[in-house]
Order: sequence, then C-alpha cells, then structure tokens
Amino acid sequence: MYRSFLLLFFCTPLLVFAQVQPAETLVQYVKPIIGTQRMGHTYPGATVPFGMVQLSPETDTIGYVKDGKYNPDVYKYCAGYQYDDKSIVGFSHTHFSGTGHSDLGDFLVMPTVGTLRLNPGTSDKPRSGYRSTYSHQSEVASANYYKVKLDDYNITAELTTTARVGFHQYTFPKTDSAHVILDLMAGIYNYADKNVWTYLHIVNDTLVTGYRQTSGWAKNRTLYFAMRFSKPFASYGNINNSSKEVYHGFWGKFKQGENFPEVAGRQIRAYFNFATQDDEQIRIKFALSPVSMEGALKNMDIEIPGWDFDKIKADGQRLWENELSKITITTKSITDKQNFYTSMYHTMINPTLYMDADSSYRGLDQNNHKASDFINYTTFSLWDTHRALHPLFNIIEPARNVDMIKSMLAHYDQSPEHMLPVWSNSANENWCMGGYHSVSVVADAIVKDNASFDVNNALNACVTTARHRSYEALGYYMNNGYIPDEKNGNSVSSTLEYAYDDWCIAQAANKLGKQDIYHEFLKRSQNYINVFDGQSGFMRPKLSDGTFKKQFDPLSTINQGFIEGNAWNYTLYVPHNPAKLVELLGGDKRFIAYLDSLFTMNLPDKYFAETEDITRDGIIGNYVHGNEPSHHVAYLYNWTSEPWKTQQRVRMILPLMYKPTPDGLGGNDDTGQMSAWFIFSTLGFYPVAPASDQYAIGSPSIDGATIKVGTGKTFIIEVKNQGAKNVYVKKALLNGHALDHSYITHSDIMNGGRMVFYMSKTPSNSGFLSASLTGKN
Amino acid sequence: MYRSFLLLFFCTPLLVFAQVQPAETLVQYVKPIIGTQRMGHTYPGATVPFGMVQLSPETDTIGYVKDGKYNPDVYKYCAGYQYDDKSIVGFSHTHFSGTGHSDLGDFLVMPTVGTLRLNPGTSDKPRSGYRSTYSHQSEVASANYYKVKLDDYNITAELTTTARVGFHQYTFPKTDSAHVILDLMAGIYNYADKNVWTYLHIVNDTLVTGYRQTSGWAKNRTLYFAMRFSKPFASYGNINNSSKEVYHGFWGKFKQGENFPEVAGRQIRAYFNFATQDDEQIRIKFALSPVSMEGALKNMDIEIPGWDFDKIKADGQRLWENELSKITITTKSITDKQNFYTSMYHTMINPTLYMDADSSYRGLDQNNHKASDFINYTTFSLWDTHRALHPLFNIIEPARNVDMIKSMLAHYDQSPEHMLPVWSNSANENWCMGGYHSVSVVADAIVKDNASFDVNNALNACVTTARHRSYEALGYYMNNGYIPDEKNGNSVSSTLEYAYDDWCIAQAANKLGKQDIYHEFLKRSQNYINVFDGQSGFMRPKLSDGTFKKQFDPLSTINQGFIEGNAWNYTLYVPHNPAKLVELLGGDKRFIAYLDSLFTMNLPDKYFAETEDITRDGIIGNYVHGNEPSHHVAYLYNWTSEPWKTQQRVRMILPLMYKPTPDGLGGNDDTGQMSAWFIFSTLGFYPVAPASDQYAIGSPSIDGATIKVGTGKTFIIEVKNQGAKNVYVKKALLNGHALDHSYITHSDIMNGGRMVFYMSKTPSNSGFLSASLTGKN
Repeated sequence: MYRSFLLLFFCTPLLVFAQVQPAETLVQYVKPIIGTQRMGHTYPGATVPFGMVQLSPETDTIGYVKDGKYNPDVYKYCAGYQYDDKSIVGFSHTHFSGTGHSDLGDFLVMPTVGTLRLNPGTSDKPRSGYRSTYSHQSEVASANYYKVKLDDYNITAELTTTARVGFHQYTFPKTDSAHVILDLMAGIYNYADKNVWTYLHIVNDTLVTGYRQTSGWAKNRTLYFAMRFSKPFASYGNINNSSKEVYHGFWGKFKQGENFPEVAGRQIRAYFNFATQDDEQIRIKFALSPVSMEGALKNMDIEIPGWDFDKIKADGQRLWENELSKITITTKSITDKQNFYTSMYHTMINPTLYMDADSSYRGLDQNNHKASDFINYTTFSLWDTHRALHPLFNIIEPARNVDMIKSMLAHYDQSPEHMLPVWSNSANENWCMGGYHSVSVVADAIVKDNASFDVNNALNACVTTARHRSYEALGYYMNNGYIPDEKNGNSVSSTLEYAYDDWCIAQAANKLGKQDIYHEFLKRSQNYINVFDGQSGFMRPKLSDGTFKKQFDPLSTINQGFIEGNAWNYTLYVPHNPAKLVELLGGDKRFIAYLDSLFTMNLPDKYFAETEDITRDGIIGNYVHGNEPSHHVAYLYNWTSEPWKTQQRVRMILPLMYKPTPDGLGGNDDTGQMSAWFIFSTLGFYPVAPASDQYAIGSPSIDGATIKVGTGKTFIIEVKNQGAKNVYVKKALLNGHALDHSYITHSDIMNGGRMVFYMSKTPSNSGFLSASLTGKN
Repeated sequence: MYRSFLLLFFCTPLLVFAQVQPAETLVQYVKPIIGTQRMGHTYPGATVPFGMVQLSPETDTIGYVKDGKYNPDVYKYCAGYQYDDKSIVGFSHTHFSGTGHSDLGDFLVMPTVGTLRLNPGTSDKPRSGYRSTYSHQSEVASANYYKVKLDDYNITAELTTTARVGFHQYTFPKTDSAHVILDLMAGIYNYADKNVWTYLHIVNDTLVTGYRQTSGWAKNRTLYFAMRFSKPFASYGNINNSSKEVYHGFWGKFKQGENFPEVAGRQIRAYFNFATQDDEQIRIKFALSPVSMEGALKNMDIEIPGWDFDKIKADGQRLWENELSKITITTKSITDKQNFYTSMYHTMINPTLYMDADSSYRGLDQNNHKASDFINYTTFSLWDTHRALHPLFNIIEPARNVDMIKSMLAHYDQSPEHMLPVWSNSANENWCMGGYHSVSVVADAIVKDNASFDVNNALNACVTTARHRSYEALGYYMNNGYIPDEKNGNSVSSTLEYAYDDWCIAQAANKLGKQDIYHEFLKRSQNYINVFDGQSGFMRPKLSDGTFKKQFDPLSTINQGFIEGNAWNYTLYVPHNPAKLVELLGGDKRFIAYLDSLFTMNLPDKYFAETEDITRDGIIGNYVHGNEPSHHVAYLYNWTSEPWKTQQRVRMILPLMYKPTPDGLGGNDDTGQMSAWFIFSTLGFYPVAPASDQYAIGSPSIDGATIKVGTGKTFIIEVKNQGAKNVYVKKALLNGHALDHSYITHSDIMNGGRMVFYMSKTPSNSGFLSASLTGKN
C-alpha cells in the first residue's frame, strides 16, 4: 500500500494529490476569537468538545467589587479575555463561554523571566505584577490550540488540552531566572472573600497538587488539581509569604514559605524557578478534578501519559473535526463557513464534563458520587439553552443530550431543594434567571423519542420541581394562576415562563400516558392569559386584587415585572401557543403589525441604556436578539398570513448579529444559545417551542447542508437559487413531496431524507400554509 | 452443674453468693471528673476507648484571641469544661484529653426551651445566649455516660457514644417551643477566622448533614457529620441568618434562612423547633467522619441502627470494662482504685480512631485513603506519649500499638515533609514540641518484638525523619553535633531530645542488623555530651564558636535554650545513658546530691511564675512532675548507690500528684502520659528509656496486680507488707528467683510469671544492684 502510494505519487502527482489530500478540514473555519471583543464573552483559548478544562488567556481579572461596591467593569471579563486589552496576566483552566455573569478562572499559570515582581495586588485588586504585553499578530487561536508571544519576557506560550488536562508549552529564552507562577488568588468575578481556601502540596520537584475552594456564583465550589512539570524546578516559594492569610508550617520548625512543601490559606501565589537554555521548552500538564487531588493526578496519567504536545493538540482537533462534521454545509462564502463552524464550536463548549476518568463526581449534596451509566455534566445555563441548544443536541448530539438529562436528574436527586437545575454550576445551583426550564429539556427529549433515561422518574422530577411552592413565587402562581406583582419583581416574565414550562410537562405527560398530570399542567400552561391586558394589548403586571398595575411602560425593562426584557418583547413569549397569541393580540393583521413595529420602531435612547447583556448592535428596532426571550419571535410570522416576513427577518438578523470578527457577536453567546440560533436559522428551520416536535421554517442562508442524524442516516438540505437577495422560500420539497405547511417535524429529520428549498427574491406565501404545533393546547 | 449449683446455693448461701456474684466491675472506679478542675485539662463527657467521638459538655468556649491578642484565659478551656464554671453552653463531639493547647470542640449541640435567644455572639466572642446553669449535684460523669440537668430549661441531658457516633437523649418539659441548637461557629481555641467554612444540608425533617472546616492548630482540618433526630422537627432556621458570613440560596428565589435546606458560610448557628409533652425524650444520633457526610451517615447506620440509648451506653461500658480489666489490682483503698482505673481510662482516650467504618480516612496529603490492614489513629502527642504511654500499650494494647505505628507510617508516607509525626492532629501536623519522638515509639516496638509491621520501612522512615536537615535546626545538629544557640531557641533541649531519639534509631537498627545505621545513630546519640558544661555542671546553651553562652540561669525556663523546662531538670535528660550521666555530673555521690537538691530545693517564686502547664502543686522542689521532661528522673537513683531513693521519691510523688478529685491532677494529663506514669509507678516499675527492653524498679503502691499480657498469660505482681510507710523494696522475687538487678525486662513481663515484692519501712540497697540498660551505648 505504502509502496504503490509512493509510486502513484511520483507517476501522476496532480491526480494523486487530489486523491490523498484529506477531506477539507472543518476545524480550519473555527475562529475562537469571534466574540472576544465587546459583548460576546467568549474566550480564545483551548478546549476539546464539552471539556472540563478550558485553558485560555486572561487579559484581566479585575475585581467584582471596587471601593466596596459592585464594579460594572467586571462584566466585560466574564470570559477573562477582552480583545482590546494589551496585556496578558496568565492562563487559567476554567471558563464559561459567553455568559453574562461569571465565576471560575481557576489556577492561573504564567511564565516569566527576570526579577520576580513582588507586587501582586490582592484578590480584589489583582492587577498582577507579572503581566506581559502581547500583540494579536503573534496570536493563534484555533480549536484546541492557542499560541501567543509574551513580549515582556520573550516567551512563546502554547496551550492545548484533553478533556481534563491543560497542556502548556512555554519556550523560554536563555536565562538563570525563569519562573512559572501558579496563582491561586486569581479568579474571574473575584473579590476579597471569594477564595474560601486554597491548598498547595509540593509532592516532588516536578509534581504539585492542591485545590481551590470558592464561594462566588457557586456558593460552595471546590476544584482540585495536579500540575506536573517536564523539568524539575530548582526552587519554589510563595510570593505572598508574608500575608497573614497564608498558613505554612507552624511553630517555626521550618523556614516558612521557601521550599516548604505545603501551604494553605486564601492568598497564595506560588512561583517555581528554573534556569533555561535559549529556546528551551518547559511543558506543564495541569489536570483538574471535581473530586480530589488524587483524582486529578489519575486524570492526568490516563489522558496524557507522555509529553507529546503536538499529538495532544492533534488528538483534540480530531475530536473537534468529528463534532463539526455532523453538519457539513455547502457555501461559497468563507464568512458563512467561519460563522457556521465557529457557531458549531461555540455550541460544543458548554455544558461541561464534570466527572473524573473513573466516573466520580461531586454532587449537589456535596457528597462524591459515581456516575454508573452516564457522563456527568455541569454548566447548564438553562434559561438560555432550553430554547435552541438542547433541541440542536437532540439532532446532532442525541446521546450526549441524554447524558445531560441524566446529569440533570442526578442534580435533582442530590439537590437539597429537590429541584431540577435552574443554572447548574460545579455541584452548585446558581438559581440564575427565571422559570424551571429543565422541564423543557426533559420534555423535548421525551417528545422527540430521545429518551433512553428513566422517563417516569424524569416526569416525576419535572412535576415535583413545578410544584415547589416556595420557589420564586410559585405558590402564588399556583394559587392565583399568575404571580401578583407585589409578590415578585419578575411577576409577568415568571408567569409566562412557568406557563410555557408547564406546557412542556403536559406534553411529556401526554406522551407517557399520564393524563392526570397532562390535564393539571395543560391547565397551568394557559396562565399566560391571566397576565394579558386586553386594553393595553400587552402582558402586564397584575396585582393581587386582580387589577393591572397602573404605572406601566411597555418599553422599559426596569421594575416592570420582567427579567431582562420589556413588555413589548415579552408579550410575544407564548411559544407554546402562537395561534392563541395571535388571537389575543387582535388577530392576523394586528399581530403582523405588532411584530413589524417590534423590528422597525426607533427605540428611544433612554431605553437602550437600560438594556443588559447586548451591544447597540444587538438590538434591531426594539427586537433584542442579544438576549434570549425573543429568539423565537422572528419565526412567529409563520402563524400569520405573511410567513415570508419570518424569512425576511431571519435573513436580516443573521448577518447583522453574526460576523467572523472579534466583535462579531451581537450579545453574550450564553453558553451556545446564540450560536444554536445561528445554526438552526442558517439551515432554514427553528424550534419555536421545544417539547413540540415541530421546527418552524425560516430561510436557509447557505446552498446546502448534510446533517448526520445517526446510524449512517443523513438529512440533506439543498437550497436552490439562494443568495443575499434570494431569501424567500418559493417552495420546499421534503423527500420529493411539496411541503404544504410551514414546519418540518423531528422525525422528518431523524428518519433521514432530503429537503429542497427553492429560493426567490420575491416574497411568496404560496409555498405552504401556516405553522401549527403538534403539542396539544 | 446447674442443678448442683442451685442446690449448693440454697444449702450454703454465703459461700455460693461469693461464687455467683459477677466479678466486681472496674468501670465503677472510673471518675472522668478527675482532672476537670484547674490544670488537668480532662473532660467529663462520654467516649468509648480511643473513640473518634468524645461527647462532652462545654462550660465555656471563650475565644483564643481577645482584643487582638492571645487570651491567656483560653488555656483553661483546652478540654472545654472547667469544673468551677456554673453554666453549660452545650455538648460538642470532639475533645483532646489533657492537652496544653487545643483545637476541636466540633458541632456544639444544645437543647433549650422558650424564646430562642438571638444573642449568640461571634466566633471570637462566643458567649452564647442559650447557655444554662447546672449544678454538680445533678451531674453524672462515668465511662461512656454523662448526665446533667440544664436548670434554666428544666431539660435533662444524657450522653453516650459509640466509636463514631454521639448519642444524645434530652428529656424536655411540656412546651410548644422546644429547640435544639446546632452551633457550627463554636469551637475550642476559637477565633474569628478559625472557621474556614461550614456547611449544613437539611436532608429531611429528621436528618441533617454537613461539615466544619477549620484552620487552627491543625491548619487544614475538615470534619463531616450526619445528625439524625428521633422525632421530626416542625421547622428550622439559622440564628445568624443576617450575617454576611452566611450564604443560603441566591437570587432571592427563596425566603432565605427559614426552612431553606442548605446553608454555607462561617457563622452558622442552626436551630430546630419542636413541641414536646412533659418528659418527652428527643434523641439525637450524631455521627462523625473524617472523609465525607456520606461516610458519617454510614457510620451512624452501622453503629447505631436503632434508638436504644441504654443499650449503647451499656455496650460502651462493656468495652471499657474489657480494657480496664487488662490490669486488675489488689488494694483496700478506694482512692487507689479510683486513681488507677481513672488513669487507665485516661490512657485509653487518645490517640483517637480516625477512620470510617469502611476503613476510609483522610491522609496528611489531604487525599482520602483506605487503611487496608490497620486501624488508623490520629491525636499523637508524641513529645508526651513516647515516654510511658506507648510503652504501656506495648504491654496491654500491643495490637493497638502496632496499628498506631502503622498509622504513623501512613502519616509518614503522606506527609509533604516526608517525616514521621511530631503531633498528629486530624490529617494535619501540628509540629508541636521538639524532637522526632515517633522514632522512640517505633524503636520501642521493634526492640520489644511487638513489630508486626514492615520494620525495614519503619526504620527507613525513622532515618529519613532524623536526617531532615531543614527541620528545626537539625542540619546544624548534624553538622556540629549540637545546635548552636544562635540558631534555635531550644538549642539544648532539642540537642538532648535528638540524641535520645538517635539512640532509639540505633537500637532498632541493631536489632534489625543494620550496622551502618546503628553506628551512625549511636554516634549521634552521644551528642548530649556536646552541650554539657563541665564547669557549671549543667547542660548549657553553646554558641557556634564552641563556647558556652555566658548569660545562663539554670533555674529559668525563659530564653535559656530549653522548651518547657529549665537546665536543672533538663540536665538529667539522658534517659538512654544514665550511667554516663552520673559520670558527667561528677560520679555517684555528686549525682545523688544533684537529684536530692532537685526534689528538695525551694524554687524562688519568680521561677515558678515562668512554669507552664502545671499548678504549684505540680512542682516538688524544682522537680516538675506536671510536665514531661522529668518523668524518668525519680527513677535515676537506680543508677546510683541509693536506689531506695527512687522508691521514696515515687511514693512521695504518687499521692501528691494524683487524687480522685476534680482538681486531682497536678498538671495536664497530656493525652494520658501523666496517667501512664501513674500506672507504671503504681505497679512498681517504669520505662526510663523506651527502646530499651528494661523497666527500672520503683515502689509498688498496691497489694498486687494481675496484668493480662496476651494469649491467656498473666504477669502477676504480689506486694507483701506494702503500706504508706512501707515503701522500700527489701527484696523482690521474679518467678521465685531473687532479683539481683534493679530492673525487669519486657520479656519477663510478656512471658507471664509472678513477681513478689517484699516491702519494708526501712530503706535498703541490699535487694538488687544498680540498673543498667541493655541497649548498647
């Protein structure tokens, strides 16, 4: 084989070149730098799909608190890195991708040369003395590989990872004073008391173990590590040796702080000293564990037994290639490919693996557990991700989505409150944002027959969660059919979100033949009607006495009863019954006018200033794409007589909100939800109401796509005559038959098949009828 | 047999009564109250032998720090209880017995009735609002059972334990407002930052789990618990709910602090509310684990599956009876019995079990381990206990002593410093006091053939420990043969202690045929000579240049180069070569005069004021029995021409220093070392130099004793003509042969046999010759 190959190569080089060239890699289109400028809150570092380790540079880790108050500047640093910054503080091992609040940033490592700078700051003012300038010219940010030159030190830093191990490769100049800093004080969204405790154990001159225990967004989080150097360090110590927050040995038995092998406290910054030759590389394997230092060490030895940096990099990129290739798209546009595969990449960072190689993990009850038949995940930002990310997983990551649901059920079992996760963060519950949207993820999987978990237990968990009376005004909601505005600041948005979630439970119950639960929750799912004010035409805060609150500004997001949104947007939040919503809002024409006004109105500046989580670019009229509650809105025209406006709006949103540039994201990526919207919308359909098996038709923006839907089957999308102006669907054929409704179903996709869109520059309603929802209402 | 027995019973009742009456229980003589007043630092609560749980009342838990400085009053509360106090704060689950520094006091539980007092203080000023007065009249303190009436609340509290579970029984009056407080802030030797973190999880209305993480004497200690109530609580909450140091849920989803099932932070005092009928008993099982909450719960379910308080109490007392019966003594004096069996009791509290029922424990490396072939112990106060406590264990607890040594070897394996324990405290190293006396314990077991552990590994651990150059001036000692006084404040005492420890290593090496190690350490063992100043006749601080330090006060304990002692006492600290010491000090007569002066001089008040750890009663002349370095001194007359003076001194010390009263101990019991001295001395012999197999003869103070030495063998001591004045040994027969030397050997005891002492009121040297030491010098 080898010989004939050689022979061929020399005989017919061009032909053979074409034959042996590997299929075009998709990894090349991944640009992790997208979203790192301004509001995307993504990070440029290295990770494997859904990896426990996300190893990325920090350009700053400013304190969460400044002068005793919340420091609004910290918001920029949710992912630790801002493209406009000129210096790098170090490389830490955990990050959220795209969130609007943060935590993590654990175990900052930084190589330096020269005099050790002893001006490290404190945990709330951590502008470290060891930072280095860098330039984007020297920077390479790609899937599972990051490289940068640290100009102040003439050190080249390279990073790659496996699922549980960060791999650093530092190329030093010749020097007698090379250092590697291990900063246990540093963290994202840090403040003085956030480090509850840190511990460092110098096992020998190449191995260090320890842990960091924080109380931040996660109130009670511990992360363990093992750190192995490729070269023995000559000596070591602790920069903050004199801090009273640092505890070494005791009773003065040893010279403390210098070459003393254990230290604990809250303010530890260790250094390790080396002498290096010119271009000498020092490599570091840095393994994590949610369970123990021993677990971290085992993870390291299993995942990276040797020191071959290039192999680990290539292995990880192969994992990415495999994930990315689940959808191959046809387009002549590099921009499209970069946007698409970077979106794919961004949907496959969170949730994150939260389990040792031996299946041990820490549970919500703070005990250690073994995952007997699943992979345990954390980092569930469910208010965001139930909308499109988990539905996307049901298509291209079905097994992983089942494991995620099993992780959520384990969370439920271990939760002191006996609730499914709201925002699962490293064996903790953040309780961030509203609703109990886990039930949407669970129900979506049940309805879509991707349910190889204990469905009855899962339904029970959903029901118990939804009946937890002491959870955010839920008791009032259950008693009154809405949340009285006096009782809760998010009275309207929570009522709407509960109603949708209840509909999800009803759909799952119906599927499982639990009619009593179905009826109970179907009735609850209609509660959105109770906060609709027919007079103003908006969802509106209602008081305990049944009257609507007088003071009301449907454009404002402040004290109006909505979380992260205004009434104008949230009034459209009835994803589970758009038909009824159309009726409530005055019928077809008035509903279309309402939608049109949303996209076209001129939002006064004072309202823009209120808006969270997005740039000005993230708003189109009054439509806020940079935040999630309106993600289904562009698709609602499908329930009117003008579905072509969905096509138009989607194609307007796509290039405005997604660009292959550092500032390319119009808002927080929110652990992949923004990117999942992009993927669905690019392909031409979108899950308006997860827990329905329908996807509303939009406007595909590429020339074609092949989706691997398992066991060798593919769902092929062909888009004829597509172009920047040809955004309207003239007709669509599903497996050769003309589609006569504006949706496809999950089984249409998962059975495999071919869908052909015929595009036109002329709007048309002739192609298909209005969308419906198979879910019962 | 039975019938004839009955017959006999009716025929000759008196005779038979004597036959069928159960053997006199020894438990009745245990008075845990001994030593709880003034300086004994013992506690009156309940424990089983070497139990993990020591459940005892706290009369106060005052802060370690007052007005920013060390608070000397805290010293009184090393064991949490002072007999003179009038009120009880609660009952906590961990204590040291008899130490002179402290930690622990974990998980204070207190029943109350009435309005919940919300004035709990802070962790450094913790005089709690819920304390109750009590009186000693209502108090019962016995082995594994403590009872007291809490007068303020009309509640009777009873406590008993198993190895890992505390069992509370509270008898309430009729009330709608009964409470049980669980105070996670409280602790012994507490200060504001000592609580690194605490966690509470309300699993259901009868089960609570959690942990407490402290940085105190142990820098990095975590203890987990599970707490189960016999009756469901009606509601619960946290007294310190408003503290910023307490973190409940987040984002205001729940009404925080009240009936919210998880809370973490540093200032948690939980309460559980009940309604009770008159005399209603609420029982609580409170299990500990060094590993996890789950481990604690398993420990509970294994050790106390039911709720039978009386059975658990009786089971534990049976364990005590078994331990106490290893030595039965003959005496007409109740005082003797109370002193003896309370001493036995006090020698069997520490070290403590540190391992779950499934053999898991936390190691010095802060990882969890499984003890594959031993029981893991902690609480090794080795500077104290190597002297007589571990030698006592080699006679009556040989298997346990082997497990303790295996625990010490595991400590060594896991220790970041690769050293055997100095003071092992709950997976931490306190580094308290000098020397590396673990080697004495290891060598003593090897020399005495109680060595069913890996002796070569053990010797290696001893050698590595003794060569750790950066440990307290050990490098200087190795280089110079002594520690220059400029280099270390305890230059002389450490030199002396190292020299003795080195001799121990030499003895073990010799026994194991390791001649190179033997010679190395035998040479080192002679280093005591290097700090002997022939001119002053004292061990004296020596400078780097080889001259003795000019300023020198042999009576002072301050800045003289000695730890807890003065030169006058420490000069006698050559336990491994008294013969050479006699020679150094000028020969027989001058040595006798030196010893005499020690016991008879009038120590000026200024020196008394310097002395630590003891009451005025703890000093006889200048002889400090209340502290350990002189414990062998009374026996040194055996190496002179007047061994009768040993007999005289011992019999003088015994009644002065040991009384069956709350203030009966003349100094800290030091985890049983003081008590072990009492036991040996009462029996008539003492291990002057552990790692020798010899015991120097003293003066037995009872009429006889039977020591169970294993496999059915006994060593019987008969004492003829013993009395308060008949303290001199006229002769002694060992197995019928007259003893011609003033010692017996370990094998004399362990082979079983009979020793008969013939006592006289007249001093006599005719009985036997001077002591020697079989160990090579």
